[in-house]
Amino acid sequence: MSPPDEVEGPLPTDYEIARSTDMEPIWELVEPWGLGLDDLQYFGSYTAKVKHHAIDRLREQADEKAGNLVLVTGMTPTPKGEGKTVTTVGLGQTLNHIGETAMIAIREPSLGPVFGVKGGAAGGGRSQVLPMEDINLHFTGDLHALTSAHNLISAMLDAKISQGDELDIDVNDVAWPRAIDMNDRVLRETVIGLGGKTGGTPREDGFLLTAASELMAVLCMASSLGDLKERVARIVVAYDGDGDPVTVDDIDATGAVTMLLRDAIKPNVVQTIEGTPAFVHGGPFANIAHGTNSLMADKAAFGMADYVVTEAGFGSDLGAEKFMNIVCRLGDMTPNAVVLVSSVRALKYHGEDMWPADFDDIADAGVGAVEAGLPNLDKHVQNLQKFGVPVVVAVNRFPDDADEEVEAVLDHCREDLGVKAAESTVFENGSEGGVDLAEHVVAEVEAGDEESFAPLYDDEDSIKEKIHTVATEIYGADGVKYTGGAESDIERMEDLGFGEFPVCLSKTFHSLSDDASKKGVPTDWELEVREIYPSAGAGFLVALTGDVLTLPGLPSDPAAAGMDIDADGNISGLF
Amino acid sequence: MSPPDEVEGPLPTDYEIARSTDMEPIWELVEPWGLGLDDLQYFGSYTAKVKHHAIDRLREQADEKAGNLVLVTGMTPTPKGEGKTVTTVGLGQTLNHIGETAMIAIREPSLGPVFGVKGGAAGGGRSQVLPMEDINLHFTGDLHALTSAHNLISAMLDAKISQGDELDIDVNDVAWPRAIDMNDRVLRETVIGLGGKTGGTPREDGFLLTAASELMAVLCMASSLGDLKERVARIVVAYDGDGDPVTVDDIDATGAVTMLLRDAIKPNVVQTIEGTPAFVHGGPFANIAHGTNSLMADKAAFGMADYVVTEAGFGSDLGAEKFMNIVCRLGDMTPNAVVLVSSVRALKYHGEDMWPADFDDIADAGVGAVEAGLPNLDKHVQNLQKFGVPVVVAVNRFPDDADEEVEAVLDHCREDLGVKAAESTVFENGSEGGVDLAEHVVAEVEAGDEESFAPLYDDEDSIKEKIHTVATEIYGADGVKYTGGAESDIERMEDLGFGEFPVCLSKTFHSLSDDASKKGVPTDWELEVREIYPSAGAGFLVALTGDVLTLPGLPSDPAAAGMDIDADGNISGLF
Repeated sequence: MSPPDEVEGPLPTDYEIARSTDMEPIWELVEPWGLGLDDLQYFGSYTAKVKHHAIDRLREQADEKAGNLVLVTGMTPTPKGEGKTVTTVGLGQTLNHIGETAMIAIREPSLGPVFGVKGGAAGGGRSQVLPMEDINLHFTGDLHALTSAHNLISAMLDAKISQGDELDIDVNDVAWPRAIDMNDRVLRETVIGLGGKTGGTPREDGFLLTAASELMAVLCMASSLGDLKERVARIVVAYDGDGDPVTVDDIDATGAVTMLLRDAIKPNVVQTIEGTPAFVHGGPFANIAHGTNSLMADKAAFGMADYVVTEAGFGSDLGAEKFMNIVCRLGDMTPNAVVLVSSVRALKYHGEDMWPADFDDIADAGVGAVEAGLPNLDKHVQNLQKFGVPVVVAVNRFPDDADEEVEAVLDHCREDLGVKAAESTVFENGSEGGVDLAEHVVAEVEAGDEESFAPLYDDEDSIKEKIHTVATEIYGADGVKYTGGAESDIERMEDLGFGEFPVCLSKTFHSLSDDASKKGVPTDWELEVREIYPSAGAGFLVALTGDVLTLPGLPSDPAAAGMDIDADGNISGLF
Repeated sequence: MSPPDEVEGPLPTDYEIARSTDMEPIWELVEPWGLGLDDLQYFGSYTAKVKHHAIDRLREQADEKAGNLVLVTGMTPTPKGEGKTVTTVGLGQTLNHIGETAMIAIREPSLGPVFGVKGGAAGGGRSQVLPMEDINLHFTGDLHALTSAHNLISAMLDAKISQGDELDIDVNDVAWPRAIDMNDRVLRETVIGLGGKTGGTPREDGFLLTAASELMAVLCMASSLGDLKERVARIVVAYDGDGDPVTVDDIDATGAVTMLLRDAIKPNVVQTIEGTPAFVHGGPFANIAHGTNSLMADKAAFGMADYVVTEAGFGSDLGAEKFMNIVCRLGDMTPNAVVLVSSVRALKYHGEDMWPADFDDIADAGVGAVEAGLPNLDKHVQNLQKFGVPVVVAVNRFPDDADEEVEAVLDHCREDLGVKAAESTVFENGSEGGVDLAEHVVAEVEAGDEESFAPLYDDEDSIKEKIHTVATEIYGADGVKYTGGAESDIERMEDLGFGEFPVCLSKTFHSLSDDASKKGVPTDWELEVREIYPSAGAGFLVALTGDVLTLPGLPSDPAAAGMDIDADGNISGLF
């Protein structure tokens, strides 16, 4: 399949490009990649889940493939995003275009950001996954299944509390907020159980975004349905009067919760606009969760192609750090190269001193403004190099970018940093726009040494050592201060035997620091850690830093207000 | 397709029967009924949604069919249910078995009752719809889509409130609680928006079950995607400082909400265990909502077969009354016959005076206990006859029922009430067990006169007249008392121009009265109406009576606690 013909007139929207593309039925598309008709569970003609027997077979076949893992991450983004998914999809397409075989594995969108600031999230232009409107709306129902399963645990837990059960659950020590897949700030802090005896036991509660639910992490870390069930059983939902943990299994919810996730655990396969197959499965955010798609998808992809291109959310300080320190550790994977996505817009954004009075005029701010933002890019390159993995910088080109702006970035990377760098126009041109980038990636992978990769800390390091390592080495903090109950949380985690878990830090994505307002490369600051809790099912600890929120709110002008559908089903406003 | 071979040993579970049945691919199954490959949107091989162009075609074809509409309802049930869905499915199968053509149209299950008391809801035994585990879990995602769409309205509404928007929304007059598809009593009454300025504006709130959301009613009443959008726009979500309504359209949510429902509005088609096609679409409960599947499904079914068998939830006082007074009125349909499902168990349940000390010993209580419950059955027969539709009583036979108990019911119906009556063993025997029932239904339909059907009240009757009619004629109340703000609610409804809407009464299903503890035929009581609000999108008013709850809770031993799934995906405990 080749890219669609040029559309006349102004630059077409992602949706117009998507609708003008002839998709192949998914069973025909994946057949050359080793999946047969009976390996798939269909959702319409263009989306399928891969059945467990096929996943098992693909895993066995992985030995016959090269097993090259390429991670796509980014510099600190603007609120609009810098095109990481576009670059991931475009790179996957281009690797196939230049004669390699490549599978793509990315996360599935959450309705929260779809209706909030960003709109849809399925790549864009001539580097998007299709059918984009299905993927951005309910897709195969994985997020809904997770939300239901999460809230079933909540309902069963509160039923136990209301019954004054023998578990002796401490109503002030419940560790399982409810979940919703919607940006809805008023649900962050609530009081529930009001209205008298029939309304249950009153207590403080709150909602987090489904993307931040431990069930999402469990789904992404599980290796099979049986493993999923064991992980679900271990999840800590509360503590009893003695401070001992109460698990999902203690409240008799393991079976029903796993049953609700029996389809959600199967990876979803779709196609890109150029016909490259892509797994779109699991959707943890990289700020409030671990930020990469499911291991089930990654492992299956290794049985289908020599290259697996995957994306980690936000900057090297978030998704990529967690991918290296947590996902590759727990999933036994080694990245062979990292692509760091930058943009002229984001560089200007970080060169704050050089802004015009109104940031919207930044397009005309010139090369000086771009150069002022380079230290942010440099820090991300250095962060990634600490893991011993070769880095290739991609400049994701936007229509307004000037040639000299792009050149300034490329020259800096090559000459000052000594890393390979390429302009990418995969948004506008599909695989034709990613050849330089893909060739650099292949060269680095082929020259690379898998032995050089290592996470930044050891299992045996103390919890504080692990946090200190990430804070100082990656975020650039001078140190770490523990506030609120964080110190006693750490003691509890060690008492419970969770001391050897890696640590997943929840931190704002707007800054390398824990202060969203600080651009560039913040210095002279300490990381504030205010709460630490276990994801015992997923196998890591979560540390909340600064004022990071696990449930976003809608902005004053939400993307949802601009969305529409006509009587014939044509959608608009879903970017 | 014929019923599966007998299974050896003890009575097999519904799930075992379902798994032992060879299903036909849904596209093959519906082809003789006039649906082609391209008319369907597939969810796996055995479930599909019917696309809009096919719905339109089926509607046009309805003129060529007989258009016979058979409603299945029941007497006041025990908490376990008396087999109304089993009878509906069995009757549909049997009509085809005896040489008629029949389509089934039923509601889709809600996760609330699945995990609460009842377990799954897809019929049972040899009269169930398949694949039962899919239907009972996430199915095609309609309930999830409705929950998301409902809560998107909530999030956009609270965002407007927090911004102090020009709409001047009265924070104490919000008419749009949040929704969840889970029995979770602690969410009935909550306080939201806590935690300071970033947490939004604090206010009292609560959740209702998705089945009771006005969006569910809107989905069931809509005739097309365009009509759905117009109905969504009209929904009243709050009132402003002057008491004027604020609609979904006022908060800019119409387009995004309709977009979220673009697939949910398409009817789902599956098959019964004997290969009869069935629409399973829309899931309003009959106690806290209007209680029948979508009009889209009904109207499409009329284009596929001469008979459409549909089910209304709970007793004649709930689903059937609403079907006659609301759904047939708004949907321009005429029922040709009603099947009233009774059971020996339910009759004993209502013959309270004759109970043994322990109700669990009721199986041995004998014919006297059955006869003591007959007045409840009689009242339901009389209720249905008031609409001018012929009634056939079905005695849904359970394994422990004695012959003389069943005979006592049949004799009473024939001799004392003068209505046709038949034993039904469709649970155990499929269509072989429903022949008598089906033949009675056909005889009544063929002898009937459509002109004799009429709703019980006129559009022009006042709101209080409408409520009085249902309360006295159907429930058997002496009158109606209005408490709380009900009187002023009525004034407001009339001021807003909603006075000509039919009224959907929310009432307990455990009793003909508004007091769940009163069995048999309660007398000497007044109906208490405590709140009335508009479903302006659906086109009716909702009146809350007694202490009916729009969000159920989990029982002390929820069905979920007994559910399990093994590593190979085999489910247990989902009845």
